[in-house]
Amino acid sequence: MPRPVILYSGPWTDLPLEELAPKVSDWGYQGLDLVCWGDHFEVQRAASEADYCSRKLELLSRHDLTAAVLSNFRVGQAVCDLVDARHQALLPEYVWGNGEAREVSQRAAEEIVATVRAAQKMGAAVVAGFCGSPVWSYVNGYPGPTPAVVSAAFKDFARRFSPILNACRDCGVRFALEVHPGQIAFDLHSAEMALDALGGREEFGFTFDASHLHWQGLDPVEFLRRFPDRIYHVQIKDLALRLNGRSSLLNSYLPYGDPRRGWEFRSPGRGGIDWESIVRALNEIGYDGPLAVEWSDAGMDRDFGAEDACKFVKRLDFEPSQASKGSAFRNT
Amino acid sequence: MPRPVILYSGPWTDLPLEELAPKVSDWGYQGLDLVCWGDHFEVQRAASEADYCSRKLELLSRHDLTAAVLSNFRVGQAVCDLVDARHQALLPEYVWGNGEAREVSQRAAEEIVATVRAAQKMGAAVVAGFCGSPVWSYVNGYPGPTPAVVSAAFKDFARRFSPILNACRDCGVRFALEVHPGQIAFDLHSAEMALDALGGREEFGFTFDASHLHWQGLDPVEFLRRFPDRIYHVQIKDLALRLNGRSSLLNSYLPYGDPRRGWEFRSPGRGGIDWESIVRALNEIGYDGPLAVEWSDAGMDRDFGAEDACKFVKRLDFEPSQASKGSAFRNT
Amino acid sequence: MPRPVILYSGPWTDLPLEELAPKVSDWGYQGLDLVCWGDHFEVQRAASEADYCSRKLELLSRHDLTAAVLSNFRVGQAVCDLVDARHQALLPEYVWGNGEAREVSQRAAEEIVATVRAAQKMGAAVVAGFCGSPVWSYVNGYPGPTPAVVSAAFKDFARRFSPILNACRDCGVRFALEVHPGQIAFDLHSAEMALDALGGREEFGFTFDASHLHWQGLDPVEFLRRFPDRIYHVQIKDLALRLNGRSSLLNSYLPYGDPRRGWEFRSPGRGGIDWESIVRALNEIGYDGPLAVEWSDAGMDRDFGAEDACKFVKRLDFEPSQASKGSAFRNT
Amino acid sequence: MPRPVILYSGPWTDLPLEELAPKVSDWGYQGLDLVCWGDHFEVQRAASEADYCSRKLELLSRHDLTAAVLSNFRVGQAVCDLVDARHQALLPEYVWGNGEAREVSQRAAEEIVATVRAAQKMGAAVVAGFCGSPVWSYVNGYPGPTPAVVSAAFKDFARRFSPILNACRDCGVRFALEVHPGQIAFDLHSAEMALDALGGREEFGFTFDASHLHWQGLDPVEFLRRFPDRIYHVQIKDLALRLNGRSSLLNSYLPYGDPRRGWEFRSPGRGGIDWESIVRALNEIGYDGPLAVEWSDAGMDRDFGAEDACKFVKRLDFEPSQASKGSAFRNT
Amino acid sequence: MPRPVILYSGPWTDLPLEELAPKVSDWGYQGLDLVCWGDHFEVQRAASEADYCSRKLELLSRHDLTAAVLSNFRVGQAVCDLVDARHQALLPEYVWGNGEAREVSQRAAEEIVATVRAAQKMGAAVVAGFCGSPVWSYVNGYPGPTPAVVSAAFKDFARRFSPILNACRDCGVRFALEVHPGQIAFDLHSAEMALDALGGREEFGFTFDASHLHWQGLDPVEFLRRFPDRIYHVQIKDLALRLNGRSSLLNSYLPYGDPRRGWEFRSPGRGGIDWESIVRALNEIGYDGPLAVEWSDAGMDRDFGAEDACKFVKRLDFEPSQASKGSAFRNT
Amino acid sequence: MPRPVILYSGPWTDLPLEELAPKVSDWGYQGLDLVCWGDHFEVQRAASEADYCSRKLELLSRHDLTAAVLSNFRVGQAVCDLVDARHQALLPEYVWGNGEAREVSQRAAEEIVATVRAAQKMGAAVVAGFCGSPVWSYVNGYPGPTPAVVSAAFKDFARRFSPILNACRDCGVRFALEVHPGQIAFDLHSAEMALDALGGREEFGFTFDASHLHWQGLDPVEFLRRFPDRIYHVQIKDLALRLNGRSSLLNSYLPYGDPRRGWEFRSPGRGGIDWESIVRALNEIGYDGPLAVEWSDAGMDRDFGAEDACKFVKRLDFEPSQASKGSAFRNT
Repeated sequence: MPRPVILYSGPWTDLPLEELAPKVSDWGYQGLDLVCWGDHFEVQRAASEADYCSRKLELLSRHDLTAAVLSNFRVGQAVCDLVDARHQALLPEYVWGNGEAREVSQRAAEEIVATVRAAQKMGAAVVAGFCGSPVWSYVNGYPGPTPAVVSAAFKDFARRFSPILNACRDCGVRFALEVHPGQIAFDLHSAEMALDALGGREEFGFTFDASHLHWQGLDPVEFLRRFPDRIYHVQIKDLALRLNGRSSLLNSYLPYGDPRRGWEFRSPGRGGIDWESIVRALNEIGYDGPLAVEWSDAGMDRDFGAEDACKFVKRLDFEPSQASKGSAFRNT
Repeated sequence: MPRPVILYSGPWTDLPLEELAPKVSDWGYQGLDLVCWGDHFEVQRAASEADYCSRKLELLSRHDLTAAVLSNFRVGQAVCDLVDARHQALLPEYVWGNGEAREVSQRAAEEIVATVRAAQKMGAAVVAGFCGSPVWSYVNGYPGPTPAVVSAAFKDFARRFSPILNACRDCGVRFALEVHPGQIAFDLHSAEMALDALGGREEFGFTFDASHLHWQGLDPVEFLRRFPDRIYHVQIKDLALRLNGRSSLLNSYLPYGDPRRGWEFRSPGRGGIDWESIVRALNEIGYDGPLAVEWSDAGMDRDFGAEDACKFVKRLDFEPSQASKGSAFRNT
Repeated sequence: MPRPVILYSGPWTDLPLEELAPKVSDWGYQGLDLVCWGDHFEVQRAASEADYCSRKLELLSRHDLTAAVLSNFRVGQAVCDLVDARHQALLPEYVWGNGEAREVSQRAAEEIVATVRAAQKMGAAVVAGFCGSPVWSYVNGYPGPTPAVVSAAFKDFARRFSPILNACRDCGVRFALEVHPGQIAFDLHSAEMALDALGGREEFGFTFDASHLHWQGLDPVEFLRRFPDRIYHVQIKDLALRLNGRSSLLNSYLPYGDPRRGWEFRSPGRGGIDWESIVRALNEIGYDGPLAVEWSDAGMDRDFGAEDACKFVKRLDFEPSQASKGSAFRNT
Repeated sequence: MPRPVILYSGPWTDLPLEELAPKVSDWGYQGLDLVCWGDHFEVQRAASEADYCSRKLELLSRHDLTAAVLSNFRVGQAVCDLVDARHQALLPEYVWGNGEAREVSQRAAEEIVATVRAAQKMGAAVVAGFCGSPVWSYVNGYPGPTPAVVSAAFKDFARRFSPILNACRDCGVRFALEVHPGQIAFDLHSAEMALDALGGREEFGFTFDASHLHWQGLDPVEFLRRFPDRIYHVQIKDLALRLNGRSSLLNSYLPYGDPRRGWEFRSPGRGGIDWESIVRALNEIGYDGPLAVEWSDAGMDRDFGAEDACKFVKRLDFEPSQASKGSAFRNT
Repeated sequence: MPRPVILYSGPWTDLPLEELAPKVSDWGYQGLDLVCWGDHFEVQRAASEADYCSRKLELLSRHDLTAAVLSNFRVGQAVCDLVDARHQALLPEYVWGNGEAREVSQRAAEEIVATVRAAQKMGAAVVAGFCGSPVWSYVNGYPGPTPAVVSAAFKDFARRFSPILNACRDCGVRFALEVHPGQIAFDLHSAEMALDALGGREEFGFTFDASHLHWQGLDPVEFLRRFPDRIYHVQIKDLALRLNGRSSLLNSYLPYGDPRRGWEFRSPGRGGIDWESIVRALNEIGYDGPLAVEWSDAGMDRDFGAEDACKFVKRLDFEPSQASKGSAFRNT
Repeated sequence: MPRPVILYSGPWTDLPLEELAPKVSDWGYQGLDLVCWGDHFEVQRAASEADYCSRKLELLSRHDLTAAVLSNFRVGQAVCDLVDARHQALLPEYVWGNGEAREVSQRAAEEIVATVRAAQKMGAAVVAGFCGSPVWSYVNGYPGPTPAVVSAAFKDFARRFSPILNACRDCGVRFALEVHPGQIAFDLHSAEMALDALGGREEFGFTFDASHLHWQGLDPVEFLRRFPDRIYHVQIKDLALRLNGRSSLLNSYLPYGDPRRGWEFRSPGRGGIDWESIVRALNEIGYDGPLAVEWSDAGMDRDFGAEDACKFVKRLDFEPSQASKGSAFRNT
C-alpha cells in the first residue's frame, strides 16, 4: 500500500478538529485533507497568528496524522462565479462583505492566495479547490454559448487565477482544481481548455474525483491518461447510477437520498466506479500523492462509512510492477 | 397514418416563408409549426395588421399547408430567466428595449400573451415555447439549490405564467412548454413540480421532445405515460450518443458537429431513440395532434434531411387497434 | 423470396372466410394457415359433407390463395390438459359434451384425428396445434415436479398422441406442435423430452414461433439448429420486452396492451426478434414450407398490420447461397 | 449491523432442532426462522402441550438463538391451491386426511390459524408462508385468464384468508406472504392486487425474497419502494442467470444443479442480485426485522454455505445515515 | 447520394468480365473495383498489349460503368509474407515461378509496380491491395514478438514497398493497403506504425473495410477519425458476431457458413456494423471516392445479394451539411 | 477448500528454486507447478543424475510444498511449430543444436518424452505444455486454410505426439495441452479437433486457462462442460478487456502494460473472468487436481501479487454439495 490514505474533513465540520482527529486516527487514516471552514482550518488566523499552524500540526501529529492538502472549495467557487445570494452561506463574512458581486470575487481570489500561503506554512504541497464559472448556466442550457463567449470566460478565468498561481509559484505549492460540474472545467475536453487558457502553467493541475466523471459518461481512466503529469490530488468518492426510465442524470432538483434521483454518491467501493482500473492508471502515471476519501453517502451512517472506506482504500491500493513495462512475465 | 406530419420552421428562418412554403409542401409535409422570428410569424404585425393572419393562412393554404402550432421559444426563454447579454440576440428589439433584466422579462411575458392571441387568430390550438429558469445554473452546479430556493423559483414561475395562462383560457389556446435543459422543467420529476406549481391548470401542458430526455437517461415512453393528458404538442428530433470514454454528456462547450461531443442530434430515425415504442405510447394516451419534425443534424444537408424525415415519420405513424385493450387476438 | 408467405386466420374468425379471403389476397398473401373454428374450417363438416373441402379450396383459389396448413390449437389444448371450465369456451359443443374431464380429452384427441383426415382432403401437409399439459402448473410453481411426475406426464402425452400420429402416418400429414407455454414442450430441452417420449416418430415435429422463446431468454436460432429436421411449420410473430423494474416477464395477469406488462406481442419486424438471423437459420436447415404470419399486436389496427406484416416478411426472406458452404467468396 | 441475521431452518429438517441449533449458533447466526415441519416446530403439539413452546425457546436460548419468525410454507400452499396428489407429501397426515381437495384446503387454513396462535406463544411477530393459487396454471398458459376469472380467484383468496388474518389481529401476529411463483401474488402488480383484494388489512404483508423477482426481470428495489410499509419479513437467497441461448427461464422441468437450467439459486453474495442496493432500500423504508438466510445452492456444501452466508449478510448490513435525507454532506 | 457506388469484382471471377459487366449495371452499380485475376484485369496484358486498357474501358463504358480502382490483393500478399505452398494458388504462374520464397516476393513486388502502371493507363486513381507480413504468426502467438522483431518487420516492409510507392509517385496513383488480419497493419495502432515506417509518404494510405475492425472490437469511426487524410479507398462489407459461449472470434479453422463460427460476413446492412455513423464520419473527413461493395455472405445467393447491397448503399449515402460545423440549427 | 493451491514457477525463473521455495510457502501455497527452465527443473539432469529428483523433492518438502505438475511450455512449442529464429531463445542449447527446423522439432519431441519420464520420477501426475502449430499463421490470416491443410496439420500433430503419449502411457503420466493461441488447439472446436486427431487417447487432455478463452469471446464454463473428463490441469490467470474504440483484441504488437492494448492479464480476481461460475463447473465435472496460479500482471508487483492471488484462490474454492444433484433444498 504505497500511498497515504487520508480523510477529507468536509463532512465533519460540525465537530471541532480536536474532536475529529482522534476518530480519524482510530478509523485508520494517516492524515487529513483539511477544509478551510468550520474550525478545521482558518486561513486568516493562519495568516495572523504566529503559532496557529504549528498548533494545528501538533494536534494532528499527536494522533499520527499529517496534513498533506488544504481544501478551500467554498471560497474558490466565488472566484469566477457570477456571485449571487447562494454564495453568502459559503463564504466567511469578511469575504462576503458588502456582497457586491465583483468585489466578492476579488476578495475570494485574495483569500485563495492567503490559503496558498497558509499551505506553505502547514507544509502542505497542494491546495485543492473550485474556481466557479461565469458560464455554467450556458452548459446544455439555452441559448448555448457562442465560441466567443466561451473564449471570454476562459480568458477571465486565466486573469483571475494569475495572482493565485503566482503565489503558488512563490510558495512551492500547487493548485489542484477539481474537475466538477459548476466549474469552468467539468469534463475532459473542458479541462484541456482550462490548461490551455493558463498556458500550461505548472502550478496548476487537477483534483481527480472519478464520481463526477462517471455520471457524465466519461471513463475516469481516460482522464488520468490524458493528463498524466497534472494529477495533483486524488479524492475517492463512489457513485451509483439508478436510472429506471423515470429518474434522470440531472436529478430534478432532488436532494441526496431521494429515491427518485438518477444517481447517488456512495461510500467508496459500493457504487459503480471501476476502482481496480483507476489504481492501475494512477500507478501507470506515477501518482504518489495521498488518496483522500471524500466521504459522501446519504444512505449510510458517516462514522461507520468513514472506517469502512478507509479499509476499502487500503485494500485497493498496491505496488506497481518493478519490472519495466512489458518486459516481464510473457509466460508460458 | 392518422396524425398530420408538419415541419418546425425554425431551421429555415433565413428563407422568407413565401420561399419556404412550397419546399415544405414538396417534401411531403401537411403543415408548419411556425416560429415567431424571421418573417415566418411576426407577433406584433399579427396584433396590429387586420389581414396579417389571413394572408399568412392564405399563403400556406396555397401550398396545402396548415399552421396548427405557433412556436415562440426565443421570447419564452426570457420570461423566467435571469436575463443577460445572451438574450439580446434572441429577442425582438422592442422586447429587449433598455435591456434591464426584470423589465425585459416583463415585456417577454407580454409578448407571449400576444403570441397566444395571435394563435387564436391563426386558428392554432397550441403555442409551444420555453419559459427559462432562474435556477438553471444550480442544476448539478455548486452549491446545489436548497429546497427553499427551488420552491421560490417555482412560485416565481407560476406568478409570471399566470397572465399567459389566463390569456390561453380566454383564447381557447393551450401553452405547451418544452421539457428541455435550461427550462424550469427539464426531466420527469421537474415536470411534475411545474404542473404542481400551476395547480394543474388545464391551459398548461408539455411539448414532448424525446431527444432531450434520451441523453439524460430517461425513457421517453415513461414520460408520456406519466402525463397522458398533458402532451399538447410533439416534436420529433433524434439523438445519437457518442460516448467513447473521453467525450461527455455535458459536451465540453463544443458546438454541434464536433467529433469530441458525447451526443449529437440526428435526423429522425437515424439516432438512438426507440420511435416504435413512442408512437405506440402516443396511441395509448390518445394524442391526436400533429407530429412536428424539428429537424437538426449537423452532419446532413438540411433539405435532403427535411424530406428524409418526412418520409420517416409517415412510415412510422399508424392506427391503433380498434378493439378495446386486451380483448382481442389472444389466439393460439 | 423462396417461401410462400401466408396468414394465420385466427385473429379474423369474426369474419366469414368468404369475406376474409379477398382481403388476405389484397394484403399480398399467397395462402392461409386456416384455423378450425369460426367458419374458417369446420372439421365435422369436412368429414361429413362430400364437397366441403373442394368448396373451401375453390373459394381460396378464386383469390389465388392456398391452404397449406390447418391449425387446431383450441381443441389440441384439451388433449393432455386437466380440462376445467376454461376449456368450454375453446371447444365445439360436441367435444365439450358433458364436460367430464377425461371424456373431453378423449373426444378432443378424436377431433384432432378428424382434423388430420380433413387436412389430407384439403391437400394440407401439416396440422399445427397445441397438446396441452397435465403438469403446466408445476413449471416454476410450488412444489416443483419430481422426475417421476415429469416422466409420467410425458408417457401420458405419448399415449394420447399415438392415435393422432397413426392417423398422420396413414394420411401423409405431419403434426406440428407449437412449442409454447402451457404445452408439454415449451422450451428447447422440454422439446427434446417430447421427441424422446414419442420415440422420435417422424409424423411429429414442431411449429416454430420465435416470440414465445424470446421472452424465456432462448435464442430462436439455437432452437432451429437443434431440430433441423423437425421444423414442420413456421409462424411469424414478434415480441417486445418492456421491462422497467416494476413489470415482469410473467405479466401479473394483465391483458395484452396493458402498459404494466413486461412484454407485448408486436407486428412482425416491430419487436426485438432477430429475424435476419432466423431466416438464415431456416435456409441453413433447408426449411421450405410456408412462413405464416400469426398477427398479434394490441397497439395496432389489425388490417393495417396484416398488410404491413406481409410486406415485412416478403422483404425478409431471401435465397440462400447456391455454392456449397464455405467454398465461396473467401476473397481478399 | 443493525438487524439480526437468522437462518431459515427448512434445508436442515433432516436434523432434529436439538442437533441443528448448536451448529446455527456456531455459524454465527442470532436466531432461526423456524419451519413447521420435521421436528423444528410442530403446530399441533404447540397447541396441545403446555410447555412445548417454552421448551423450544429454552433450547434456542441455550444457544443464544431467538425465534422471530415461524414459517409454514407447506401447509399454506394448500389453502388456495387446487389440491392434488402433489400436496400429500407437503402436508401433515391430519391435514391431508381423506385428501378431498376442498376439505384439505379448509383444514390447511385452520392449520395456518393454529400456526398464528403458536407464533404468539413463541413470541414470534411474524408467520411467513405461502397461500397457493387456483389460477397459477393460467399464468402464461393457454388459454389465459379472463379478468372475471382473475377477479374470482382474488375474491376466493380473500375469503379463505379472512379467518387467518382475524387470528393475526387477535394474536398481534402478522402474516407475511412470500411473493413467489405458484402463489396468487408472484410479482409487483399481482402483489398490489392481493393487497387490494384484502382491503389493505394491516395484518397482511409480504416476505421479500429477491431471487424470485430477479429471474422474472423485476428490480427488487422497486418492489421494496412500492410497498414500504408491507415488508414484514426478509429472506436472503441469491440467484444466477445462466442463459446461453439453449437454456430458458422456465427451466425445462430440470432439477436444481442441472447445467441445462437457465438459472440457479446461489448462496448469498455469489449470484447476480444487487445486495448493496437492497440493503439501502431496506434502510430507506425503515425495515428493522431480521434478515433470514434461506440457503439454497445445489453446487455447494450446505454447512460450508450456511457459515459463508452468515458472514456475507453481516458484512452486508449497515446503519443508515442519522442525518435527515439530503440535508448532509453536500460538501466540496 | 454524393459518392459512386461500385462493385468489387472478386467474388465473380468465375465469370468473364464481358458477362459480369451487364449484370453489374443492371444491379444499379456505377462502376467496378476490378480485381487482377481471372480475366477481369490481366496486368501483364495491360503492360504488353497497346489497346488492352482501352478495350476494357470501352467494355465497361458500354454498360455505363467506370473503373476507379484496381485491386491486387492476391499478389500483394506475397510481397512481405514468408511465402509458402499456400501462395501458389494465389499467384499467376509467372510470379510463382520456381517458388523460391524470396524470389517470389521480389517478383510479387514487381507485379504490384506493374499494377500501378496499369492503373495509370486505366485512369484508376487507386490500387488497393494487401502487403502480407513476415510476423503475422507472432500476433497473439507464442512466443510473442520482441520490439526488435517488430521493428525489423516494419523496416523490411518499408524497403519492399519503396519501389512500389516510387511507381505510385511517378504515375499519380495511390496505394491503399487494406487494414486486415494477415497484413503488417491489422488494427489502428499497427496502421500508425505502418505509416511511420514509410515516413508518412503521401502515396500510401488505407483501404477502409469496417468488418475486420468490428470483430477485433475496434470502432470503425475511430479509425476514420484517426486517419482523416489517409483513407484512399472504402470497401463495404458487413459482419455479424455469433458468440454463444462455445464459438470464438478466432473461428476454429471453420469455413464461412459453418454454424459453429463466432462471426460471419453478411451482405451490407444485414450485420452488426453501424453504417449510419460510418457514412457521417466519411462526410466529416471529406472522403469523396467510391464506395465499393465487397460482397461476402455465405448464407445468401450472390446475385440477389449484389443487387440488395447496391440498393442499401445508395440509401445509406447522403450529402453532408452545407453549413459550417456547429454554426447552424441551434434552434429552439 | 478442497483443492491444493499451487504456484506456477515461470515468472520467477530469475531466482533459483532454493530461494523461491520459502517465499512460495510463506505466500501460502501448497505446492509448485514447476517449469523446466532456469534451475527450477532440468530435464536432462533428472534423467542422468540419480538423486536429482529426490533432492528437488526434499527441498520442496522442507517448505511443505509438493510438485504435482511439471510444465514444459517452451520446448513443447517447438514440437509442431515451423521452427524459426524466435525459438532459439526458448530452447536449451542441446535441443536447438544446429537450428535446422525439422531436427529441432524432433529433439523437442524427445525432450518432452524425457519430461514425461522425469515427471514419473517426481511423482507428478501431469506434464503441462504447449505443442506449437504449423498453421497458426493461417488463423484469421490470408489466405485462410483449406480443409485439406487443416486436416494435414492435425495428422502431423498426431504423428508427432504419438511417442510422447506412448511415454505417458508407460509412465502413468498425463499430458495436458494448454488451449492457447499459437497452439493447434486454441478454442473449443479446435480442441475437439485435436482430441479427434488423437483418437481420444486417454493420456491426452487439456490445461484449462480461462484467460485466453475470455478475450476470444468464449465462456470458459462451456469449455469445462464440453470436456468434463479431459481437464487434466487448471491454471488460474485473470484478464481485463480494455476496449475503447481504438484498442483491439489483437493488440497491435504492443507489449504487456501498454495502455493502448485491448486487454491485459490481471492478478486473479482483478479482471473480468467469472471465477465463481468456474469453480462451480470444476466441482460439477469432479476436477480434483490442483489450482495453479499462473501469475501475470504488468501493473502489479509480482511478490505482492503472488500472495494476493493465493488468498484469492483459497477464498474462491469450496466444497460441492454432498447431496445428489437437484434432490435437495427445494425449499419453501
